[in-house]
Amino acid sequence: MGEAANVFNLSDKKYDCNGNGCGVVVESRRPCCWYEEEIYDDLRWSFALNSILHTGTSEFQDIALLDTKHFGKALIIDGKMQSAEMDEFIYHECLVHPALLYHSNPKTVFIMGGGEGSTAREILKHRTIEKVVMCDIDEEVVDFCRRYLVANREAFNNRKLHLVINDARAELEKTQEKFDVIVGDLADPVEGGPCYLLYTQCFYQNILKPKLNHKGIFVTQAGPAGVLTHKEVFSSIYNTLKNVFKYVKAYTAHVPSFADTWGWVMASDEPFELDAEKMDIGIGERIKGELLYLDGESFISSTTMNKSVYQSLLKETHVYTEENARFIYGHGRACLP
Amino acid sequence: MGEAANVFNLSDKKYDCNGNGCGVVVESRRPCCWYEEEIYDDLRWSFALNSILHTGTSEFQDIALLDTKHFGKALIIDGKMQSAEMDEFIYHECLVHPALLYHSNPKTVFIMGGGEGSTAREILKHRTIEKVVMCDIDEEVVDFCRRYLVANREAFNNRKLHLVINDARAELEKTQEKFDVIVGDLADPVEGGPCYLLYTQCFYQNILKPKLNHKGIFVTQAGPAGVLTHKEVFSSIYNTLKNVFKYVKAYTAHVPSFADTWGWVMASDEPFELDAEKMDIGIGERIKGELLYLDGESFISSTTMNKSVYQSLLKETHVYTEENARFIYGHGRACLP
Amino acid sequence: MGEAANVFNLSDKKYDCNGNGCGVVVESRRPCCWYEEEIYDDLRWSFALNSILHTGTSEFQDIALLDTKHFGKALIIDGKMQSAEMDEFIYHECLVHPALLYHSNPKTVFIMGGGEGSTAREILKHRTIEKVVMCDIDEEVVDFCRRYLVANREAFNNRKLHLVINDARAELEKTQEKFDVIVGDLADPVEGGPCYLLYTQCFYQNILKPKLNHKGIFVTQAGPAGVLTHKEVFSSIYNTLKNVFKYVKAYTAHVPSFADTWGWVMASDEPFELDAEKMDIGIGERIKGELLYLDGESFISSTTMNKSVYQSLLKETHVYTEENARFIYGHGRACLP
Amino acid sequence: MGEAANVFNLSDKKYDCNGNGCGVVVESRRPCCWYEEEIYDDLRWSFALNSILHTGTSEFQDIALLDTKHFGKALIIDGKMQSAEMDEFIYHECLVHPALLYHSNPKTVFIMGGGEGSTAREILKHRTIEKVVMCDIDEEVVDFCRRYLVANREAFNNRKLHLVINDARAELEKTQEKFDVIVGDLADPVEGGPCYLLYTQCFYQNILKPKLNHKGIFVTQAGPAGVLTHKEVFSSIYNTLKNVFKYVKAYTAHVPSFADTWGWVMASDEPFELDAEKMDIGIGERIKGELLYLDGESFISSTTMNKSVYQSLLKETHVYTEENARFIYGHGRACLP
Repeated sequence: MGEAANVFNLSDKKYDCNGNGCGVVVESRRPCCWYEEEIYDDLRWSFALNSILHTGTSEFQDIALLDTKHFGKALIIDGKMQSAEMDEFIYHECLVHPALLYHSNPKTVFIMGGGEGSTAREILKHRTIEKVVMCDIDEEVVDFCRRYLVANREAFNNRKLHLVINDARAELEKTQEKFDVIVGDLADPVEGGPCYLLYTQCFYQNILKPKLNHKGIFVTQAGPAGVLTHKEVFSSIYNTLKNVFKYVKAYTAHVPSFADTWGWVMASDEPFELDAEKMDIGIGERIKGELLYLDGESFISSTTMNKSVYQSLLKETHVYTEENARFIYGHGRACLP
Repeated sequence: MGEAANVFNLSDKKYDCNGNGCGVVVESRRPCCWYEEEIYDDLRWSFALNSILHTGTSEFQDIALLDTKHFGKALIIDGKMQSAEMDEFIYHECLVHPALLYHSNPKTVFIMGGGEGSTAREILKHRTIEKVVMCDIDEEVVDFCRRYLVANREAFNNRKLHLVINDARAELEKTQEKFDVIVGDLADPVEGGPCYLLYTQCFYQNILKPKLNHKGIFVTQAGPAGVLTHKEVFSSIYNTLKNVFKYVKAYTAHVPSFADTWGWVMASDEPFELDAEKMDIGIGERIKGELLYLDGESFISSTTMNKSVYQSLLKETHVYTEENARFIYGHGRACLP
Repeated sequence: MGEAANVFNLSDKKYDCNGNGCGVVVESRRPCCWYEEEIYDDLRWSFALNSILHTGTSEFQDIALLDTKHFGKALIIDGKMQSAEMDEFIYHECLVHPALLYHSNPKTVFIMGGGEGSTAREILKHRTIEKVVMCDIDEEVVDFCRRYLVANREAFNNRKLHLVINDARAELEKTQEKFDVIVGDLADPVEGGPCYLLYTQCFYQNILKPKLNHKGIFVTQAGPAGVLTHKEVFSSIYNTLKNVFKYVKAYTAHVPSFADTWGWVMASDEPFELDAEKMDIGIGERIKGELLYLDGESFISSTTMNKSVYQSLLKETHVYTEENARFIYGHGRACLP
Repeated sequence: MGEAANVFNLSDKKYDCNGNGCGVVVESRRPCCWYEEEIYDDLRWSFALNSILHTGTSEFQDIALLDTKHFGKALIIDGKMQSAEMDEFIYHECLVHPALLYHSNPKTVFIMGGGEGSTAREILKHRTIEKVVMCDIDEEVVDFCRRYLVANREAFNNRKLHLVINDARAELEKTQEKFDVIVGDLADPVEGGPCYLLYTQCFYQNILKPKLNHKGIFVTQAGPAGVLTHKEVFSSIYNTLKNVFKYVKAYTAHVPSFADTWGWVMASDEPFELDAEKMDIGIGERIKGELLYLDGESFISSTTMNKSVYQSLLKETHVYTEENARFIYGHGRACLP
């Protein structure tokens, strides 16, 4: 009985009757250790655990790596699941590849947040990439992920990756560099939350956009985009970016471990011109290895919302500004990615 | 303090500091009554409850109507959520309208199962419909839904609706009628489960297909179709129908209260020829009232799967047959819808 | 299938094999609706529900009557179980009868709190009683319990019961009456909590004790008294009362629905002189009906703590005072029972 | 941020306002990893976890060592908590010391079960002890506990301890030895359960009693003994032993982590003659180190049940026999400790 043996993995245990052939399940023990997340105050989600692999705390956040039965290894920050082994490829392929493929020749990328390393990992699959700046506020989280997330280890060690520990807003303000693509891999713009200021029209206009090269593309995760949830932040992010960039493209995908459909928004002053076929060619030529979730056809289809969400995007008038938030600049964790 | 007052609706309760303007949340009481569903042995889902509205038991099943905070009123059968007020329109629009719109002039529809009444409700929105046969095994469930599901009351009272209490397989075998559309609104084809026999190639070929009129269309719910779950039954239903009909079309949608992307499959010996524009015209001309989820564009996009699911559909070889199930005909609930 | 039929009552459902006699349990469905209580941040307790009978809110509190499978009907106030049908007799017999039996001839009783009505019910079983004043701050809770708690209906209608809606502290201060017994049926003295001020040495000395008749007895519930929990408030209440009264007697009982052993403390300037036999005689002569939990022998034994708790009572030096609480007089709910 | 740092230990985390004195709790994160136990089908109990320390499986059982926030390290076998660091001393002191103290000079003890090692640890505190035979069916459980339960390591290494891996019934049948005390530390006598046969009148009379020396004492854990639960097995064990031994003494204690009051029964053909004072002398003279829970007074009081339980013990007529169980000898795990 080694330590690897697993008392919790019992849900399929069966005892057969002895030789009388009835063969029914007499006992089926239930898992007894669970990770529980409050998705909302009135909605919870629980995953049976194999083990609690690693835990830690940082100046800003608490962090854990859990081994769940259903979704594999899961990274938890401040009690919210960030990504799960079984389906993180959906989120990260969607966040990274469309923007890089729509760009004709992306060489430099700036990641706001992304300390987990998976976003960098996907970016570094592109043969054209020469430099990736990953700017995360939380050094301990970055160290934790570098140490424990085996799938991202190679990316963390890639020489093209430049890690900066700083507030992404402050870093973009002070940097002299411009980038082909900027990727927003931050917490949602909850008013008073840590990342609100990185989603405002003012930030996009005055701080972010000037740091994009000509024909540069900005892409950001844009929160839940389900039929019941897309008005929380998705439609506002979309609308805010429409006020700053000439061309904006929203798309969505269901991420099982997020218990919702998720949204992303790309924005640029160049039009997004690429059909499914050309995107497939780009994937084949420019990306090392196989993608698991995205291909040309499915990406195009993911930019068509259902009627309910589409109508909301059309009608949305809310714009994130520093004024309309009940937020006090410079206070607490609010400006930190 | 009436009975309607609600002790459990407390999750957003706030106490402000007295006049000093700090305005923070001092106390936020958590809901204390929950509905908990085991989606899988290792994955659970809990909804805070406002109340337990009605409960009942039938010969076959247990049934409850719960008032949940997050998804509104929810119908639970045998501990599994069947549909929730807030998003049941997604499932039922997807199940009903594409098949009826692809048909040039659907007058008669046979529903296998569907005792909840929502499927009939959507069908009866089509102006062409003259007769709907709803065949459900469980009279008590039908009575329960007729009594308590206000949204379906009008449909239950519609003279075009013919309710039959019977096993759908037996009913289709004995009926002399043929139908323009047959709709499968049954539990998934779990081996040994109550509805397995209603998903086999044999059943489709020998019992169901002969009861379709010329140019008739069969559509069935086809189980979970998420990246992690589509191989459970979705790809097999798709593949089984490909062996029986000349044309088969699968499509999916994320249903929040199912915690997954869901799948449906349409099948016919006539090709499915309708572009987004024509579908929108059909919706406008043939359906009374507004749809909430479906329009032409989004339906077309819902027939394009992501790469992961698409590959599985392409490669699927499993076919449901009576032979390959560990199922014994005529025993228990196994052949009942 | 009536409304009384119960979909949730399924945990013992069994399907037998057909005639082969193996008779094993093939399926045992689990309850799906639960009441969940956070006993502590790190300890929870969940009861399967039959139904949510009644809910309400008051100026001060939220209130619900639940029908649980395990403990019967349960009264919940602000998310904490107050009493359960199956075992509330333990708490209320222990709170009421020892003090009344130790008194030679109790005619008048003042209840601080007790709006549920069960404490009054037990007091009114004593033939000597002429007047019971129940003083509860929350009229809605009293009305709720009067309406829904069938077991206490007779007590609520008893002419000897005088209901006062007021803060018990304020009422004791202003009343001209004195009482043979005063019963404290209040929430625990958590600092900053609603009832803290009703457990201080100052309150006992200056407000409560002057309202006891000669040979009068004060008894109060005294919080959890388990091996792991008796230092929370039990030992401090005991020690505080030792500073105010000449004789103090603590006793405990395990209350299953509280998930803990509970404590009570009696205090008087008369010695507590009664052996088991005399107590049994008192129970027989003075109390109408049978007690379920208490008799002379078991009461005496309940005044002997285990070594762990006994040592703590001996060594306790903490006294509740208005000064040592982080409590601001007159603010919020803090002075309300 | 070391691995020891603890992301889950967040429940008391607070953020203060900066210098404006409002000082309220803005955020109090809840633990997210839980151990959940089904005490009954309709009653659950959940402990927040710090970590899952070790897990294993044996031929008979699954086993885990969890680090819980509330009860410390907890040993779980087959999804049921066996003992918790914070309060296992209650169970084990009650199981072992009364019987050994009532015996005038106990030198040899046989433990049926007890693979955890805590029972042996308590026995070995008695200076008179020369030999302890611990007979447990499950070698892997014994190895697991020997390896991971630090508190019992010394006991496992004690030369007086003789470990036998066998069914305790078979071992007692075949052994030539007799013992001063036999201790039953087995699972409850659930009909069809693994230990039923070790609680029958026949076993006690024909197998166990002959292996007691003159004036020998048998003591067994006797299951839950709460007001609501004592009729499950406690009263029957008591009554069964009354049919076999001249003198029987039952006693109880609330064990917090069992969520119930627990019962034990001692039995002998010698009378149990020891008052509180003499027991305290015995504790002082014969036991190495301090007891935490038991002393003379509290033990005597623990033998007096409340009225409800006492009446049940008086009235109990059920006796465990091999005949009245629905149990088939020799089948499955039924005769194994």
